[in-house]
Amino acid sequence: MKGYAMLGIGKTGWIEKDRPQCGPLDAIVRPIAIAPCTSDVHTVWEGALGDRHDMILGHEAVGEVVEVGSLVRDFKPGDKVIVPAITPDWNSLEAQAGYSMHSGGMLAGWKFSNFKDGVFGEFFHVNDADGNLALLPDGLDPCAATMLSDMVPTGFHGVELADVQFGDTVVVIGIGPVGLMAVAGANLRGAGHIYAVGSRQVCVDVARKYGATDIVNYREGDIVEQILDKTHGKGVDKVVIAGGDVNTMDQAIRMLKPGGRVGNVNYLGSGDYVKIPRIEWGCGMGHKSINAGLMPGGRLRMEKLATLLETGKLDASLLLTHRFKGFENIEAALMLMKQKPKDLIKPVVLLE
Amino acid sequence: MKGYAMLGIGKTGWIEKDRPQCGPLDAIVRPIAIAPCTSDVHTVWEGALGDRHDMILGHEAVGEVVEVGSLVRDFKPGDKVIVPAITPDWNSLEAQAGYSMHSGGMLAGWKFSNFKDGVFGEFFHVNDADGNLALLPDGLDPCAATMLSDMVPTGFHGVELADVQFGDTVVVIGIGPVGLMAVAGANLRGAGHIYAVGSRQVCVDVARKYGATDIVNYREGDIVEQILDKTHGKGVDKVVIAGGDVNTMDQAIRMLKPGGRVGNVNYLGSGDYVKIPRIEWGCGMGHKSINAGLMPGGRLRMEKLATLLETGKLDASLLLTHRFKGFENIEAALMLMKQKPKDLIKPVVLLE
Amino acid sequence: MKGYAMLGIGKTGWIEKDRPQCGPLDAIVRPIAIAPCTSDVHTVWEGALGDRHDMILGHEAVGEVVEVGSLVRDFKPGDKVIVPAITPDWNSLEAQAGYSMHSGGMLAGWKFSNFKDGVFGEFFHVNDADGNLALLPDGLDPCAATMLSDMVPTGFHGVELADVQFGDTVVVIGIGPVGLMAVAGANLRGAGHIYAVGSRQVCVDVARKYGATDIVNYREGDIVEQILDKTHGKGVDKVVIAGGDVNTMDQAIRMLKPGGRVGNVNYLGSGDYVKIPRIEWGCGMGHKSINAGLMPGGRLRMEKLATLLETGKLDASLLLTHRFKGFENIEAALMLMKQKPKDLIKPVVLLE
Amino acid sequence: MKGYAMLGIGKTGWIEKDRPQCGPLDAIVRPIAIAPCTSDVHTVWEGALGDRHDMILGHEAVGEVVEVGSLVRDFKPGDKVIVPAITPDWNSLEAQAGYSMHSGGMLAGWKFSNFKDGVFGEFFHVNDADGNLALLPDGLDPCAATMLSDMVPTGFHGVELADVQFGDTVVVIGIGPVGLMAVAGANLRGAGHIYAVGSRQVCVDVARKYGATDIVNYREGDIVEQILDKTHGKGVDKVVIAGGDVNTMDQAIRMLKPGGRVGNVNYLGSGDYVKIPRIEWGCGMGHKSINAGLMPGGRLRMEKLATLLETGKLDASLLLTHRFKGFENIEAALMLMKQKPKDLIKPVVLLE
Repeated sequence: MKGYAMLGIGKTGWIEKDRPQCGPLDAIVRPIAIAPCTSDVHTVWEGALGDRHDMILGHEAVGEVVEVGSLVRDFKPGDKVIVPAITPDWNSLEAQAGYSMHSGGMLAGWKFSNFKDGVFGEFFHVNDADGNLALLPDGLDPCAATMLSDMVPTGFHGVELADVQFGDTVVVIGIGPVGLMAVAGANLRGAGHIYAVGSRQVCVDVARKYGATDIVNYREGDIVEQILDKTHGKGVDKVVIAGGDVNTMDQAIRMLKPGGRVGNVNYLGSGDYVKIPRIEWGCGMGHKSINAGLMPGGRLRMEKLATLLETGKLDASLLLTHRFKGFENIEAALMLMKQKPKDLIKPVVLLE
Repeated sequence: MKGYAMLGIGKTGWIEKDRPQCGPLDAIVRPIAIAPCTSDVHTVWEGALGDRHDMILGHEAVGEVVEVGSLVRDFKPGDKVIVPAITPDWNSLEAQAGYSMHSGGMLAGWKFSNFKDGVFGEFFHVNDADGNLALLPDGLDPCAATMLSDMVPTGFHGVELADVQFGDTVVVIGIGPVGLMAVAGANLRGAGHIYAVGSRQVCVDVARKYGATDIVNYREGDIVEQILDKTHGKGVDKVVIAGGDVNTMDQAIRMLKPGGRVGNVNYLGSGDYVKIPRIEWGCGMGHKSINAGLMPGGRLRMEKLATLLETGKLDASLLLTHRFKGFENIEAALMLMKQKPKDLIKPVVLLE
Repeated sequence: MKGYAMLGIGKTGWIEKDRPQCGPLDAIVRPIAIAPCTSDVHTVWEGALGDRHDMILGHEAVGEVVEVGSLVRDFKPGDKVIVPAITPDWNSLEAQAGYSMHSGGMLAGWKFSNFKDGVFGEFFHVNDADGNLALLPDGLDPCAATMLSDMVPTGFHGVELADVQFGDTVVVIGIGPVGLMAVAGANLRGAGHIYAVGSRQVCVDVARKYGATDIVNYREGDIVEQILDKTHGKGVDKVVIAGGDVNTMDQAIRMLKPGGRVGNVNYLGSGDYVKIPRIEWGCGMGHKSINAGLMPGGRLRMEKLATLLETGKLDASLLLTHRFKGFENIEAALMLMKQKPKDLIKPVVLLE
Repeated sequence: MKGYAMLGIGKTGWIEKDRPQCGPLDAIVRPIAIAPCTSDVHTVWEGALGDRHDMILGHEAVGEVVEVGSLVRDFKPGDKVIVPAITPDWNSLEAQAGYSMHSGGMLAGWKFSNFKDGVFGEFFHVNDADGNLALLPDGLDPCAATMLSDMVPTGFHGVELADVQFGDTVVVIGIGPVGLMAVAGANLRGAGHIYAVGSRQVCVDVARKYGATDIVNYREGDIVEQILDKTHGKGVDKVVIAGGDVNTMDQAIRMLKPGGRVGNVNYLGSGDYVKIPRIEWGCGMGHKSINAGLMPGGRLRMEKLATLLETGKLDASLLLTHRFKGFENIEAALMLMKQKPKDLIKPVVLLE
């Protein structure tokens, strides 16, 4: 079968591979719609995961089941499914402890385009089909549903980590597609004022549609000062970090009230240390809690988040600024993600 | 001063009383807008709190501070304020344990029209002004803001007790004004399907505007069966009870999944026992958690919920089907609440 | 192979059955030590689960793995293992939601001597060996370790459901083996005063060793009154129910403070309703939270609780008042459990 | 009246001051037993709080009420009381949000020897007596009870921040008096293996008595390596930091499992940044949660923790290696704290 792969650090291309084998608990899926992710760009051009050779890329997809293993009960060939980016081993000790995304080791629930081939192939393999696939609800646009693989659950997990409550004042740092989903998620969890930190007009416009009450542009001055000004020096209840780098935490802590929480869902690809400013952290006594983690994946998460699209409570299609058609356009979509033009939020490729 | 009072069980009328005294931590407030509550009706005509004589009624108000005690720091005469129905003693052991509404004893954070005169007078007394008042944000309609005293925080507390999460399927039983706020709250906490149980058309219409995806009419058959049908026998994640009686819990438990939660904010005025069906409760092992409590009041709660009105995330004015003007119309508004005509959700009286 | 079985309601006896088959994820285990449980008695003589024919009894065991399926990674024949009474399907939706004990349906994580043969056979079957077995730590007495299957995790779960915190005043109702583990668990979670409700001397003595500060004997008067007397009318922070019947909840609610929590781990075998007293429950507004559930099972739970025995922090052997030796004595041990003589807490049978 | 004070950075001495005034909510207390704290040493000799002139030191005391304000209900002259180091303003927004220790601003619930005179005077002032004092239970040794002011609640709060659960493997870094209370607290919350990091023999011996299962001596090699060795490379569930400096967090993160939690209660007096190692923190995705905060104070906290001493569940007197008698020996006790001889854990001074 064909697949679009990382050939090595900095190089991508089409390759031929054997169709994956289906174990007794597994499924083989043919993609219907896929989306490239900034992580794919980091993986290839920044070597964020280390070197990989001829590894098919991609971890955001909706597809059709073409084969299931002998122990699979709930899915059969022909089923249209949402595929989460994170597909845990559910009987692992980590999953039993409530951290399925770290099943088998830290971050090891992330398998596609990390430990095995991703979804940019004619077929791909899903471990534990019963535990990790979710039926695509009838009538749901597969392109919008592709946002359920990673963008929605990651952005929303930032909101969960920050534990947003009714009437909280929330900052979301970074309003790329994940940050926009954090804005939408904070809004859906009952935040009052939502300060979205970003600058690109296309993102700003969508952030307002998702519930941002204020836009804070880092090009117009220090964001900590801007936030403290807007809150009369008090700071905010919660901060979700969905962009930036190892220095962003410093800013987040400075804009938080004592008793506040940070939720980080930004993958930090470089730098030795994330730094917490001692004094603004209350000399280690300020109850500014720091929480950071990979999205929860698996079937239940997909089913639950899908209902938000189904009931019209979340319109994920606002993210889809660029729509491609045809398997061969996976390359164009990924390259667009790499170039990140001004008007891009997220590209998607419909394969049929 | 004049006030509209409960004269005894089953009797109300206008009375004359001395203007209340202001202690060192307290405030005296003149009401700007008030709303009668079903509780006032229960108090008077059902004797729900026992007998009371010449007690001024009412616990939902926005007002203007006319006097403050010597130890009050943050409020001064002329300030327009939101007044919560529940005004705790914040240094009590119960408040320190996180249950300020029970400060000094179960339910004893509820003082207006319970242990002391309520807000249907020319003036009323607020204990611990710094801890219990919140400034009315500029530009907020005082009538809509009156819903922050009780309807919004009570309905939303049902959602907090049920611990609604992203994508949860939620039933709200009862869609009077509190139930409608529970619908709005469930929607604002990220529920997917929201089944609102009720029958009056005016409430049904508003329930849909607040995010109900389905209406379940108890006149059309057993609500447990209807909910189980809609969920293919699986039941729902969470139930908020905002209406009914001591038998409603039985229904709630029957429609819940194992691991589900009930949040009750319905005041149960009669009956000896609330009954949990043994088998459907998993013989005491089904992890169907039962949570029930009076709304949290106080200043922070009011400030936080007010931001939802301020930012336009919650439109509490949809509740206000009947608007009166003038102090003398308090009586008419209460009587309307008592009669509960078909087109009523909530009356409000603007006093100036 | 031979096994001691429920032949039908009210009848038990030795039967011959085929040795169970081992699926690809499963293990076949030979018991080393087993213990009968009050549930076995309820199952047979009260028909608590409905009728069962020729079903081998027992769900508390330590054993030796004799066979594993092809997909099992972490266990091999010869391994000595702790076997939890509850063996979930870890990829089920319920387990993903945090309620693994209800995997596949309410209480359906309980399989031994419920949906399939239990551990009182020469061999027994364990589903998902990697997810559900735990290595028996070297040097741990297999008889004491048998208490990890059900007694320790059930009693401790009552404490978790009641959410005992440092310095809480806790009542434990019922001091059979589960209740005694609830006393030990409350003590290990930092409770201050622990009121143990019971009457048999052997249990009272052990309750004190496990940390009970006071014994409340229901033969000496109403337990609610006794508890309210001891707490100067204030009531207690938490109640764990580990005995009694459908009327016990009524007592628990009456002795709780507002803001308190009940944790029930008592299997309620008969009665239509569990009743909550309306007034003492604050008319549905008292924040007396009711939590009730089957123990969490699985590997991680067993590993964690085993460390408490390993490090000497919990001495489960205090429960073992009667020790038998030899497979044929399973019957005698079960009959002892049925008769419940005065000096019995828990019998155990060492098979080798 | 006389008091032992910080005269300026690096200087201490006896001073004369007016006896403090009692406001309507307050109490004036005469100390019965006091203990100096490492914080007093940091305050004076490191200038940790900035310069202070003629400020009476000390925040750990048991005393006798000599005067109460007109609004105080629950205390009267002659009452013997436990005084918490942290005495919040309970009606503040921060307290209403659950963070009373930050009432009025980050760390501002800490008033003694910070914003006002401390307890090393003939008399001292307590704000909000009803909210902040607790009766000394009859028969409790006032010297041991002095440990309830700060050592017990601070050490135990580390355990709460780390959210220790049954069977958790816990590291406590630092086994001075606070760290020892963290060991005792972890043990009382049901930890299994407790690795105590320290070196002084007197502390090591007491750590074992409080439940440490292993001692890790930083003089014998890198503590991260030692912990990873002991856990076969897996790391631990929870880390409580009760010593060290801004670099200790780096070590804590490296020894934690994904999904683990750090609870920091160590006051960080110098350094610009607390550093989180990016890779070991899962590149911002490892769910290693960082929690750090000042102890909760106030009356309820004191009452609850006092029951642990009363019931014999915690023997705080093991900390008291040096006992002085007489008001004039406050100076000697503080100097001992400054010198920190090998055999010191904590000095205490009985004043009567």
